[in-house]
Amino acid sequence: MAGIDGVTRTDFETHPSKYKHWKLSFDGDTAKLVMAVDDEHPHKPGYELKLNSYDLSVDIELADAIQRIRFEHPEVKALVITAELDRVFCSGANIYMLGLSTHSFKVNFCKFTNETRLYLEDASANSGLGSLAACKGTTAGGGYELALACDETLLVDDGNSAVSFPETPLLAVLPGTGGLTRLVDKRKVRRDRADVFCTTAEGIKGKRAKEWGLVDDVVSRTKWDEMVLARAKALAAKQSVTRGPAIELKPLGAKINDDAIKYANVELTFDRAARTANLLVRAPEWPEDFDKVAASGTEPWALRAFRELDDALLRLRFDNPDIGMVTVRTKGSPGLVKACDEQLASSKSGLAREVRVFQRRVLKRYDNTARSFYAVADSADSCFEGVLLELALGADRFYTLMDGDEKIGMTTSVANEGFFTMSSGLSRLAARFYGDPSQVAKIIARGTEGPIPSEEAEKLGIATIAADDIDFEDELRIAVEERASLSPDALTGMEQSLRFVGPETLETKIFGRLSAWQNWIFTRANSTGEHGALTLYGQPERPQFQWKRT
Amino acid sequence: MAGIDGVTRTDFETHPSKYKHWKLSFDGDTAKLVMAVDDEHPHKPGYELKLNSYDLSVDIELADAIQRIRFEHPEVKALVITAELDRVFCSGANIYMLGLSTHSFKVNFCKFTNETRLYLEDASANSGLGSLAACKGTTAGGGYELALACDETLLVDDGNSAVSFPETPLLAVLPGTGGLTRLVDKRKVRRDRADVFCTTAEGIKGKRAKEWGLVDDVVSRTKWDEMVLARAKALAAKQSVTRGPAIELKPLGAKINDDAIKYANVELTFDRAARTANLLVRAPEWPEDFDKVAASGTEPWALRAFRELDDALLRLRFDNPDIGMVTVRTKGSPGLVKACDEQLASSKSGLAREVRVFQRRVLKRYDNTARSFYAVADSADSCFEGVLLELALGADRFYTLMDGDEKIGMTTSVANEGFFTMSSGLSRLAARFYGDPSQVAKIIARGTEGPIPSEEAEKLGIATIAADDIDFEDELRIAVEERASLSPDALTGMEQSLRFVGPETLETKIFGRLSAWQNWIFTRANSTGEHGALTLYGQPERPQFQWKRT
Repeated sequence: MAGIDGVTRTDFETHPSKYKHWKLSFDGDTAKLVMAVDDEHPHKPGYELKLNSYDLSVDIELADAIQRIRFEHPEVKALVITAELDRVFCSGANIYMLGLSTHSFKVNFCKFTNETRLYLEDASANSGLGSLAACKGTTAGGGYELALACDETLLVDDGNSAVSFPETPLLAVLPGTGGLTRLVDKRKVRRDRADVFCTTAEGIKGKRAKEWGLVDDVVSRTKWDEMVLARAKALAAKQSVTRGPAIELKPLGAKINDDAIKYANVELTFDRAARTANLLVRAPEWPEDFDKVAASGTEPWALRAFRELDDALLRLRFDNPDIGMVTVRTKGSPGLVKACDEQLASSKSGLAREVRVFQRRVLKRYDNTARSFYAVADSADSCFEGVLLELALGADRFYTLMDGDEKIGMTTSVANEGFFTMSSGLSRLAARFYGDPSQVAKIIARGTEGPIPSEEAEKLGIATIAADDIDFEDELRIAVEERASLSPDALTGMEQSLRFVGPETLETKIFGRLSAWQNWIFTRANSTGEHGALTLYGQPERPQFQWKRT
Repeated sequence: MAGIDGVTRTDFETHPSKYKHWKLSFDGDTAKLVMAVDDEHPHKPGYELKLNSYDLSVDIELADAIQRIRFEHPEVKALVITAELDRVFCSGANIYMLGLSTHSFKVNFCKFTNETRLYLEDASANSGLGSLAACKGTTAGGGYELALACDETLLVDDGNSAVSFPETPLLAVLPGTGGLTRLVDKRKVRRDRADVFCTTAEGIKGKRAKEWGLVDDVVSRTKWDEMVLARAKALAAKQSVTRGPAIELKPLGAKINDDAIKYANVELTFDRAARTANLLVRAPEWPEDFDKVAASGTEPWALRAFRELDDALLRLRFDNPDIGMVTVRTKGSPGLVKACDEQLASSKSGLAREVRVFQRRVLKRYDNTARSFYAVADSADSCFEGVLLELALGADRFYTLMDGDEKIGMTTSVANEGFFTMSSGLSRLAARFYGDPSQVAKIIARGTEGPIPSEEAEKLGIATIAADDIDFEDELRIAVEERASLSPDALTGMEQSLRFVGPETLETKIFGRLSAWQNWIFTRANSTGEHGALTLYGQPERPQFQWKRT
């Protein structure tokens, strides 16, 4: 089923009962996630997941575990991530897997693992779920990057266990899952020490690891269990955000064939010859009482539709690399999305809050998807309303049809007023009007008066292009065809530069700067060429480098 | 002499009397720089510089002109950049030149042109020299990027002249000289409009260019000369910083052979077999009265040594791509650099200020040079003092020898107290102690008491490694050898991520994000492969793209 290069289908859904690589257990307000990678069950045949190294299948389970703890186990306030092996916490992304992968897969794999680690930080910052990496043994590369994403890292002090970034000295690549950025920008390790650390393959252990700020504490083997427990309890006690009530995340039941991926509320349909797709998101079909629906054990639209959207975006990225251009449409009756947004925003329930935070993550995944998105409002039942309007504001362009009776338009809600920040920390309206902040308040105020028809939306700057019946279809068709004809690489770089205006954050640094350098390095012969270090890893032959510095 | 790929020697020194591509004239407080590219004098044979397209030779002259106006023409408060051709302002970087260049040259070329454009902005922000791009005709690609770096841009409104970024649609690369970043982050063009603009090869003209914020004004041909003059005068009148007195920038007289590049105060010596170099900067030999020396027509040390250092860094980048690892040493008697720093900081002279601003630019060029720098204090006449201590703080590591009589050490001065900001806006001390800001004040305070010996400097966190006689030489030798053995690509990405901690600015976005994406795109077959768009530009064959989106 799963294909390393997206030729076949990748399944991002799993369940703790199916985990092959992690063991999830609960004890009151603490959850424990034990990495116990099954080396015989890699994502794709061709390599073994030795020494708790990971690949996409391991990371899909990690992402699932974090997500389920947030929704299904609201009582959990601290997550301990540790390992079953006694001498190895995690040796990082599997190198043979990387060596066997295409550039496209490598980039998407890194993006997914980066998102998962950011979700750990998001859970701590927004959902009252702290995390502790309990590293009893070698903590290398991506293993240390996972630890860096936790609130705290403990390292066993046994004269042997070290944290390390061997990527540059051994593989001629970067620790690309946020490691370099978190080292100096989150943990604020002195940059010259970070330089020494990142070029010392064997890593740094014991007191020095603590002194340099690489870990929060080093603990002897005899005191290990006791200390891990005490720190987890302390971490749990610190949390002030309350989640819940619990809700079970049910299977999404995607129906997939070569032409489409269909869920209850989301459809991604492909025109493979044109290398385009249409993403359709449906509004709820009837008014929902969020808390009541959730209490009945059913996922409310606000959760379910965004889970579907999230899954669709991942399948688009991994399994449909040739689809470069996506039109985005919405459909539904007016008022229902807005009502959902208002309920979520005003509810006192921790679950409602959790759903909003999740919607925010999904919208960030959308921003960070390397495809051209044109939002299109061309039908009277188009529904760019509230949280769905964010899809239009996050798109590269927004095309709207001017119909005579002004039925086509867009509607704002509380969802557009600032909660749904991009990675930059700006709301999508604030990013759009970075040059004219007063326009944001103007649009919010206008929005309270009712739907904004296409022509007015263009004047207000929400729509990029509004055209009438005579021109609309041709204009859109030509724009889509043109976009689909351009170089995918240049478009990715262009969109990354234009989408994320304004302030930079740890997140934008990871996706915009660190990932861009890593992408470049992945294309270079010194890492992935015939004689490159990544290619030759584990073989007797020494890599041969081209020495030109650029 | 000049070699496009740095195989031979590139000369970064020139003089208005030698310009082939620009005409520089003066009229009171306004200077005019007219682009009149001589298509028969490219930097290297193999292409013609048609339609005011530029290459390195054109940009070296531009950089020289800006620099000379700052130092030699302090009366100038507004610089008008315009073109001699009637229908073309500038058509951007020469595409055939890019197609013929190695990856390494392309990256270095873009970095240099980026620095030159940032210097225009620096001149406006810090030196009372505003700039106006008067675009009478096609303003494409790098031509428009040059205009974006000016304070104001006027476009002629003749129904034909447009500003454009045709790079993505025509060449499958980015406008890589800051264009994308300046579009949305400086001019704050709405991101969806920027998307349309960057994919519309023919560009945008007339009223729409003004409405979208792409230019400041559009002016008819009949009113053109009058309006340009009026805007230049208004720009000059706005300036409040006073430069001067004037000082002539004399030839640097570098002595170059295969083993070394030597100037009066700076020496770059190569060990080509080891692919390493040593950069030596000498302190002034005797106490200088800055204003008196300058008045005599001699360049004071503070200016001359930094001009030499700047030239050495450029020659290192362009002509010595195989040299990846550079040790940085200083030499001189104590107190003289500190005295220079204090004079510059306390002087009321506009020239002193201008020299400091220039030193800051050179130090940024150093930060942004893609080589590993290890500062080394291993001799009693080592002189990491004041502004020269910045070279150690900006290096990736700082090795210091602990001598018994504590003669080796470092000295702070007013130069380390905040004026010499990196691209991030942080001083090098603040960047080093990003995790412990109180340490900055502690070191400044300690510095006023006198030199800080190696051992203490290590304890304070200024030195990375202090070792005694027995270990020092071996430790340094091994560290240098190890560094020189690592992949140059991974090191560049690693250093870019570790050096620029903390806040991001337009500058760091250009060098860290935009350039990283461009570097990646330059390596991709879609641009530079056999069937890539850059390769095939101007030929009848259509590019063939690999469609995978990453």
